[in-house]
Amino acid sequence: MKVMIIGGVAGGASCAARLRRLDETAEILLVERGPFVSFANCGLPYHTSGIIAREQDLLVANEAYFKANLNIDARTRCEAIAIDRKAKTVDLRHLETGEVTTESYDKLVLSPGAPSVAPPIPGIDLPGIFQMRTVPDARAVREWIEKGSLFLTGMSKYSGFQTARPKTRAVVVGGGFIGLEMAENLVHRGFDVTVIELRDQVLAPMDREMAEIVERHLNHHGVSVVLGDAVTAFTPREDGAIEVATRSGTEFPADIVILALGVRPDTALARSAGLEIGKLGGIRVNDHMQTSDPEIFAVGDAIEVRDTVTGAWSLVALAGPANRQGRIAADVIAGRDSRYRGTQGTSIIGLFDGAAAWTGASEKALQNAGRQDYEKVYLYPNSNAGYYPGAKPIAMKVLFSRTDGRLLGAQAVGMKGVDKRISTLAMAIQMGATVYDLEEAELCYAPQFGSAKDAVNFAGMVAADVLRGDMPISHWGDPSEAILLDVREPAELRVESVAGAVNIPLRQLRERITELPRDRDIHVICRSGQRAYYATRILLQNGYRAHTMSGGMLARYHRGVLDS
Amino acid sequence: MKVMIIGGVAGGASCAARLRRLDETAEILLVERGPFVSFANCGLPYHTSGIIAREQDLLVANEAYFKANLNIDARTRCEAIAIDRKAKTVDLRHLETGEVTTESYDKLVLSPGAPSVAPPIPGIDLPGIFQMRTVPDARAVREWIEKGSLFLTGMSKYSGFQTARPKTRAVVVGGGFIGLEMAENLVHRGFDVTVIELRDQVLAPMDREMAEIVERHLNHHGVSVVLGDAVTAFTPREDGAIEVATRSGTEFPADIVILALGVRPDTALARSAGLEIGKLGGIRVNDHMQTSDPEIFAVGDAIEVRDTVTGAWSLVALAGPANRQGRIAADVIAGRDSRYRGTQGTSIIGLFDGAAAWTGASEKALQNAGRQDYEKVYLYPNSNAGYYPGAKPIAMKVLFSRTDGRLLGAQAVGMKGVDKRISTLAMAIQMGATVYDLEEAELCYAPQFGSAKDAVNFAGMVAADVLRGDMPISHWGDPSEAILLDVREPAELRVESVAGAVNIPLRQLRERITELPRDRDIHVICRSGQRAYYATRILLQNGYRAHTMSGGMLARYHRGVLDS
Repeated sequence: MKVMIIGGVAGGASCAARLRRLDETAEILLVERGPFVSFANCGLPYHTSGIIAREQDLLVANEAYFKANLNIDARTRCEAIAIDRKAKTVDLRHLETGEVTTESYDKLVLSPGAPSVAPPIPGIDLPGIFQMRTVPDARAVREWIEKGSLFLTGMSKYSGFQTARPKTRAVVVGGGFIGLEMAENLVHRGFDVTVIELRDQVLAPMDREMAEIVERHLNHHGVSVVLGDAVTAFTPREDGAIEVATRSGTEFPADIVILALGVRPDTALARSAGLEIGKLGGIRVNDHMQTSDPEIFAVGDAIEVRDTVTGAWSLVALAGPANRQGRIAADVIAGRDSRYRGTQGTSIIGLFDGAAAWTGASEKALQNAGRQDYEKVYLYPNSNAGYYPGAKPIAMKVLFSRTDGRLLGAQAVGMKGVDKRISTLAMAIQMGATVYDLEEAELCYAPQFGSAKDAVNFAGMVAADVLRGDMPISHWGDPSEAILLDVREPAELRVESVAGAVNIPLRQLRERITELPRDRDIHVICRSGQRAYYATRILLQNGYRAHTMSGGMLARYHRGVLDS
Repeated sequence: MKVMIIGGVAGGASCAARLRRLDETAEILLVERGPFVSFANCGLPYHTSGIIAREQDLLVANEAYFKANLNIDARTRCEAIAIDRKAKTVDLRHLETGEVTTESYDKLVLSPGAPSVAPPIPGIDLPGIFQMRTVPDARAVREWIEKGSLFLTGMSKYSGFQTARPKTRAVVVGGGFIGLEMAENLVHRGFDVTVIELRDQVLAPMDREMAEIVERHLNHHGVSVVLGDAVTAFTPREDGAIEVATRSGTEFPADIVILALGVRPDTALARSAGLEIGKLGGIRVNDHMQTSDPEIFAVGDAIEVRDTVTGAWSLVALAGPANRQGRIAADVIAGRDSRYRGTQGTSIIGLFDGAAAWTGASEKALQNAGRQDYEKVYLYPNSNAGYYPGAKPIAMKVLFSRTDGRLLGAQAVGMKGVDKRISTLAMAIQMGATVYDLEEAELCYAPQFGSAKDAVNFAGMVAADVLRGDMPISHWGDPSEAILLDVREPAELRVESVAGAVNIPLRQLRERITELPRDRDIHVICRSGQRAYYATRILLQNGYRAHTMSGGMLARYHRGVLDS
């Protein structure tokens, strides 16, 4: 059996290695149009700042490794240009020589990835404008930055002249993973960074109000975030920099520009071979990773996957799913019945020692899928025991089914312990856990690591309190005629208060309860929602129509969590 | 309804607070024999070193808080001395005054905890010997240490005299949580610490070979660990220190001694009231937390719980389960049908910036429960992407059912990411996950936080490879006539090799395979097991009887993981 794999990074390389383990005799040909197979593309932004010091560190395995250890014929700078499905051949162009050869296959695996979007903006090819998808991209950025620094070093040595201004202004176009990671790494290199994002939020998979916390955190670290604006042109400036013009009419001078506008499945080869393409523009596969031609498989960023929560087709460019898809394709080629379960979309991004992470469906994804049976809670538990030094709050949004309590999605932003909570909740979603299961979860607790009631338990308790009717909730911005009752202490209200809210501190509520009307809805506010819940319990049991304002003041503007 | 709760720490305090939220009208009386309600006993060791600076930080809530916010009558220094189940009354002794009063109850909750074991060792009451269960214990240790330091400070000021030697030698009796946490905190205070443990390992809930990694890590930080020895006497020395004599005949001079011999359920009151006591010596309850008298509930360290994996009764002194039990007792008292699901035993201990953690059943617990259908794997995945600076290996042991792949237990030791993996695996066990589910788990990945194949995925893949027959495994120490095949590179063998093993580096295996016999078992070794797995696949497909030595050289002596 001869298996050809087109694309040698995450999905393709995993498929090749797995297939060899399952089948010693298969002839495996791995072709990659770039100069490297199996490189760590998630590390690229961190190489530009030097956090990952050596380019070598990004290279997981090379052609020699594939040959020696796996008996796999891996070829770089080799581009597949056409598939003949009847003849079961692929035309390969060797980019060094231009030579085209034809190779046959019994099974073909497409792992072409998803290149960055590069719209036809005038000036997009100017020097100093970079993408960040490949090792050469990272090398180019690094060299560009270091050339600038060298020049500055030179200046300070031989100075006297008022020459060029230092190269210190960066514009990042796009506020997704790569854009924000590049923003951080450019700050580490001393740049003033502006991120320009077309949408009204960064990190599109998050809900907007959670992304706001991220935006404030970026601001806190000196990154300007411009939302709802689009770049219309790049023009060279007299001082050697680039003028970045936007739709809103603002102009941003930049010594370096990173284009991180998102990615789009590379389907050129699949389309020209007549393989089915999904509505979102990705290659359509079944759960065996087979395309519409059962002899041709596709894996990785180029395919559409089923969202495990909503069941909707989606495009998800993540390394973990790509690797699993590669393994499954190999299994199926080797005659096994492995099936891909869909993609949950679990993701994390580091943000200046903090992190934002999510798993499962966002609220907007649920809305897009037409789900109306969900509820949400906001909470701000500590990363670990509050009495142990260094505990930090985590801003969490948890989505669950009102019908059966099933966990649907979770988002978290914080300085510490974010990855643990989202990984734990990701496992919970995978296993079909309900919020009642989260209440009972038995997680690691010592004061350095968690709390006796872990953030995950706390999420379950709050959500379950809602579902059991113990804590009717309301949300900021919901239309309402309700009375607002603030149960914080007067000293807290002096810092920030809500116009028109009645203030009765929790500890006085029992004795002053008759000051409140029984015939109106009362929305109870405190800092994070905990005291409001206690007050809600008192009110409900005394015949009042109380609701807890989920997340309290912290959820009002979604700020002050990371950077307080 | 009048509810009396005896014991005001984790379980009791949680029960009281929860009950108030469910029932505004219940009369709730919370009595605690110690001076504090609701204190953070897991923080006590960290207060002795000053990591938790203020005693105040350990006090979660006091009597005034309970009264003002929860309308709960909380009384400290108040000991329950007798229960009259027929009259439904409890005699309470007020420890300040000696006065005894009698209070009635409709429902009674026992949360007496588990005091430290203090066997009648001669000299056990000498000054300088401490337990570590209460805030006053921690205060006493702190004061004792600081008195010593003050004296030293004084000496250096007025010196000239060769007076007493500095107080710097500590003996900790017992290698459980509190013993090891105290060892660490005493090191932080400048002590030379010796831990004396009766068993042949520290941290009894772990399997011995995993505990060995912890022992080596303690040694690495200067802590001497004496195993299989017992203290026989404490005697005062002429220099003011304490001589700690042991069964083996060794003597250890100590300026401070911490007794951390473990805990035993406090069942005095329950026994005298005629409530059923389990075989392990804990109060027996049903899943509603009711004792043999349905009007009396019991929660926390004093009760026996069902192990969720083995189904066996067990004693587990942990804050998380105690809190949950308290909530469930409150629910049931308030007329709800909440049920305790049993205890998984998830635990973590910090170890000088590292950690050891576990969840579910250990191998010895499975053996004790008569389970013979389990298999185990050892693995050493990185905490995060190896190409990102600061990645550290995690030593993992994962236990699973050979029959259906269900995850039974996991243990991990490492410098980074241990808590996340065990919390994630704890959630997996709770939800009945199999190792196949772990393979497919979609967890947080960015290079700072994990790997595209996370440690949890990796555990699932290794275990599933075993179950699918792709990787027959063997373990060090298993009786065997097999040939040992070491597939590492010659340079690695020069550092450490196995006598009698044949060396064929993986990359040469295909061409040199005929050097091996087809009619004998071959156990394949590498550093961690990964290359051995690849070699096993090559051998099996060529008709050889190959097994991978699980965990490779790293599992041979279970060392070198944390401190390399």
